[in-house]
Amino acid sequence: MQVPSPSAREAASMYGTAVAVFLVILVAALQGSAPPESPFPYRIPLDPEGALELAWNVSYAQELVHFQLLVRGLKAGVLFGMSDRGQLEDADLAVLWTDGDKAYFGDAWSDQKGQLHLDPQQDYQLLRAQRTPAGLTLLFRRPFSTCDPRDYLIEDGTVHLVYGILEQPFPSLEAINTSALQTGLQRVQLLKPDIAVPPLPPDTRTMEVRAPDVLVPSQETTYWCYVTELPGGFSRHHIVMYEPIVTEGNEALVHHMEVFQCAAELESVPPFSGPCDSKMKPARLSHCRHVLAAWALGAKAFYYPEEAGLAFGGPGSSRFLRLEVHYHNPLRIHGRRDSSGIRLYYTASLRRFDAGIMELGLVYTPVMAIPPQEEAFVLTGYCTDKCTQLALPPSGIRIFASQLHTHLTGRKVVTVLARGGREREIVNKDDHYSPHFQEIRMLKKAVSVHQGDVLITSCTYNTEDRKLATVGGFGILEEMCVNYVHYYPQTQLELCKSSVDPGFLQKYFHLVNRFNSEEVCTCPQASVPEQFASVPWNSFSRHVLAALYGFAPVSVHCNKSSAVRFQGEWDLQPLPEIFSKLEEPAPRCPAGRGQSPAGPTVVSIGGGKG
Amino acid sequence: MQVPSPSAREAASMYGTAVAVFLVILVAALQGSAPPESPFPYRIPLDPEGALELAWNVSYAQELVHFQLLVRGLKAGVLFGMSDRGQLEDADLAVLWTDGDKAYFGDAWSDQKGQLHLDPQQDYQLLRAQRTPAGLTLLFRRPFSTCDPRDYLIEDGTVHLVYGILEQPFPSLEAINTSALQTGLQRVQLLKPDIAVPPLPPDTRTMEVRAPDVLVPSQETTYWCYVTELPGGFSRHHIVMYEPIVTEGNEALVHHMEVFQCAAELESVPPFSGPCDSKMKPARLSHCRHVLAAWALGAKAFYYPEEAGLAFGGPGSSRFLRLEVHYHNPLRIHGRRDSSGIRLYYTASLRRFDAGIMELGLVYTPVMAIPPQEEAFVLTGYCTDKCTQLALPPSGIRIFASQLHTHLTGRKVVTVLARGGREREIVNKDDHYSPHFQEIRMLKKAVSVHQGDVLITSCTYNTEDRKLATVGGFGILEEMCVNYVHYYPQTQLELCKSSVDPGFLQKYFHLVNRFNSEEVCTCPQASVPEQFASVPWNSFSRHVLAALYGFAPVSVHCNKSSAVRFQGEWDLQPLPEIFSKLEEPAPRCPAGRGQSPAGPTVVSIGGGKG
Repeated sequence: MQVPSPSAREAASMYGTAVAVFLVILVAALQGSAPPESPFPYRIPLDPEGALELAWNVSYAQELVHFQLLVRGLKAGVLFGMSDRGQLEDADLAVLWTDGDKAYFGDAWSDQKGQLHLDPQQDYQLLRAQRTPAGLTLLFRRPFSTCDPRDYLIEDGTVHLVYGILEQPFPSLEAINTSALQTGLQRVQLLKPDIAVPPLPPDTRTMEVRAPDVLVPSQETTYWCYVTELPGGFSRHHIVMYEPIVTEGNEALVHHMEVFQCAAELESVPPFSGPCDSKMKPARLSHCRHVLAAWALGAKAFYYPEEAGLAFGGPGSSRFLRLEVHYHNPLRIHGRRDSSGIRLYYTASLRRFDAGIMELGLVYTPVMAIPPQEEAFVLTGYCTDKCTQLALPPSGIRIFASQLHTHLTGRKVVTVLARGGREREIVNKDDHYSPHFQEIRMLKKAVSVHQGDVLITSCTYNTEDRKLATVGGFGILEEMCVNYVHYYPQTQLELCKSSVDPGFLQKYFHLVNRFNSEEVCTCPQASVPEQFASVPWNSFSRHVLAALYGFAPVSVHCNKSSAVRFQGEWDLQPLPEIFSKLEEPAPRCPAGRGQSPAGPTVVSIGGGKG
Repeated sequence: MQVPSPSAREAASMYGTAVAVFLVILVAALQGSAPPESPFPYRIPLDPEGALELAWNVSYAQELVHFQLLVRGLKAGVLFGMSDRGQLEDADLAVLWTDGDKAYFGDAWSDQKGQLHLDPQQDYQLLRAQRTPAGLTLLFRRPFSTCDPRDYLIEDGTVHLVYGILEQPFPSLEAINTSALQTGLQRVQLLKPDIAVPPLPPDTRTMEVRAPDVLVPSQETTYWCYVTELPGGFSRHHIVMYEPIVTEGNEALVHHMEVFQCAAELESVPPFSGPCDSKMKPARLSHCRHVLAAWALGAKAFYYPEEAGLAFGGPGSSRFLRLEVHYHNPLRIHGRRDSSGIRLYYTASLRRFDAGIMELGLVYTPVMAIPPQEEAFVLTGYCTDKCTQLALPPSGIRIFASQLHTHLTGRKVVTVLARGGREREIVNKDDHYSPHFQEIRMLKKAVSVHQGDVLITSCTYNTEDRKLATVGGFGILEEMCVNYVHYYPQTQLELCKSSVDPGFLQKYFHLVNRFNSEEVCTCPQASVPEQFASVPWNSFSRHVLAALYGFAPVSVHCNKSSAVRFQGEWDLQPLPEIFSKLEEPAPRCPAGRGQSPAGPTVVSIGGGKG
């Protein structure tokens, strides 16, 4: 194994006062390969004030991420890292700190109480520390997997980035506790797919759907709704790409944006621009739910595969569009104006295939429920072989993107494809899913679904803050488990979901009564939410509910639209039998980790300049 | 961190023929600390022929084990390592091999098919390779925990050591597959407790209970029974220590030995020496079950704590003893004679406390059952607060040793002490338990049990080879879950165990019928084993049985002897409530692992001499 000879340059300097700005002047440690010459394609502000800005790139060949952290107005140091759900406890951190004399960069972890400890193995590897006019730039890298049990495993899906600002020197790393710092989190898809950008047709035109110079409300959360319409006589086109337009200076404010098309049945939609929960909002806007484009913080442009596009315009397609912008304004900034939106790239030269969106997962029904006080309860919805056999074309479909969706208690979502009783492939998986960060994600590799395949979507919920069962439904306090998959060629199948057979659920309530004191009313008048509300939740009723959902037959919604089923018998269907599950891949430890430093790196610090 | 400068000496030599004996002449790599000057207190033959002999010591301060492997009649190399249950696949291996030119020592792992791969991190560290008149001696060390996900974690309890003999050179490590080698396993408690040996009283005398020059049968497994008796008029004494006596040359043959005392009620027991399953065996021997001493392969002398001894002799104590020797003779050696046994050290100066043995875990009853085809099904028995409150002295008891017991499907056993609803301490735990290796183990730290404490004993079973449910009971094809704890001062409490309430089990059978096709006869004539035999085992009936055992009230046996309960209500007792569980300790990775070599070590080889 080749160990490149480390080069290290140093410059003596002096540390000023405890709260002085300090400056890292020189390269502190340049180990391993030189910093990549390629630019950083991904960039995101970490804090609402934009003091910390992260840029990164991903090397799938080396299985590592290069990070470039820009720190504006550096005080006495900074923490940056990752944790399971964005908490600053049990986090995996890169730390730049000073003891008032020297400054150090090290790989650390925070314990359950937020106290920092140095990792025995240093996996955040500092490559360069540089002063620029904008601020201090730290360049460092981290392997996806370090095999240090304290470290975060960088996986596909959402990553919760965390940060903290050190305002003063600390005598040692162990003296730092995150609970005493200004800290925060930012969600991002760190491992962006490495997909070649398909060429755009020569006749590509653009259309901007933007907020009309909105005055952003000075409240933490605003969903802004704006209605616009396609030009008169706009014929059928294919959207082939779209990208965000974020008003300069508002990068930390604009959390996500979506463009919806209204239902074709609507003759007209009155103009509107205002908060989506406003009483002034036209009722018809609730019929504007067909997604044309969706963007969330950290996402880049979305390209359709070369052979497909999303149809809009022309007969049978509404002229009315709804833009929804989620402003996240925790600092309650006043008077900020915004014209962010989405730029659609479309072509009149229709591509070979129309793209479609299909809904997988659970039917929105209270028969699927989560007991309260569960740390990780799993519900699963099935798109059965019978449905795919009937509704998919003989050549199958290709899923190229996916948007996962739950309400507030969702913590993980995964869809797996099974064929012949064997799990074959993961369609999409997010083990750090957050209902506050739902983006359409391109799949790293498109997934082909054939007639007879089964698609299994499982969601994991945390109901530790709930007193009663959480039932399925449309309400924000009810739950969903959905994967909107984007695919081509478009088929009539819009919805392939399931829920437990209601008769078996009634058997469950009878059984609970038999083992307890007949708390659950099993009379016909009782509604399922009422029945769930009266279940005495103990280890038995919890486990048996989970066992029921893993055993009882299901009702399948194999639908052309939300109300129209394909012909056939869809009730009391057996659960798909799965003989062989996909194995979790064994974590691959970086081969070269013996070369990382065993302790923190000393960083030469310049003092002075307050 | 100090890195001792590695010293390496080499000597050129030549390799003879592919099957020639090769000799490692010189120290190959001497890294880290020098080999320990202390001798190796533990020693065990690995293979039935005694070609491989392992000695080891344990450093709890450094959290590592030094191994000294003696290889007699070395051919082209040797594998040594550990695996979950003694299989040669998915094993963690140290490998000495030659490609015909050079020889190498490396840390490797075998995949599911037995093929070897080099570990990215080399944690078996070779300290010395030396030729002695007896054979080649390899000295190497391994941390308990390496944090390499392919590596075995060395824990308390049983460790399955594995070995393999390389008969010929291999072009590379990857060319080796364990399925083509002569291999085997040996079970051992690797992490022996580090307890100071208590001094023996000056009047200590010894008594040998030995097999009477037995001709060992030429079959793989023999349990030999031999009846002997105490001298006439032998008064009450305390056993304070015992140790094995193994006939020289039979070290690999004698697997375990136990000395039992017969029931005091027996007037006399006829003499006998023969296989325990012989038709000639006197029926009364089944009343000789009170353990006085037990030894298993790899165990050393057993010392009672300084303030306690095991009473035997005198009025109320049978004069008759039964020695049981398990001969393990896989090579079916003919004509071997054996006089192995146990030497008891006893004193007439009775110590302050009598030691006692108490049985924790599950009652022997078919109501506790394991479905077939389970990979890891857990049953739990409770010694409740009500029982310890009633039966233990106000000052409590101290448990100093433990013998875990299940029948053939047992894979893990653990006893945890809980107080005030919180798990406090592990009494004994074996995550690699084997029913073929049951020894009395001294606890690393004696456990105090007070009035009102709860002792929870859980056993994990694997029934993948069974077609029908495995019910609790005495039969070898039935199951047990028992921890015999050795403690002082002796109390009247001999047995503190539980089983599920039989009425709740009948509710379970009703429930199964409701969700299936009424397969289980719930009429009063049906026996519980018959009922379990007719359960349709599907995911629901399996999970609900597990949920029932985790929820339903229990019958508690809080007994003075197997038939006499303490006074009180012991049926329909609630399960102990546990609010807080002990956390699994996070694996501690060796701090210095950055210093281990990144690849195999070249070992200089001398050829020649066949």
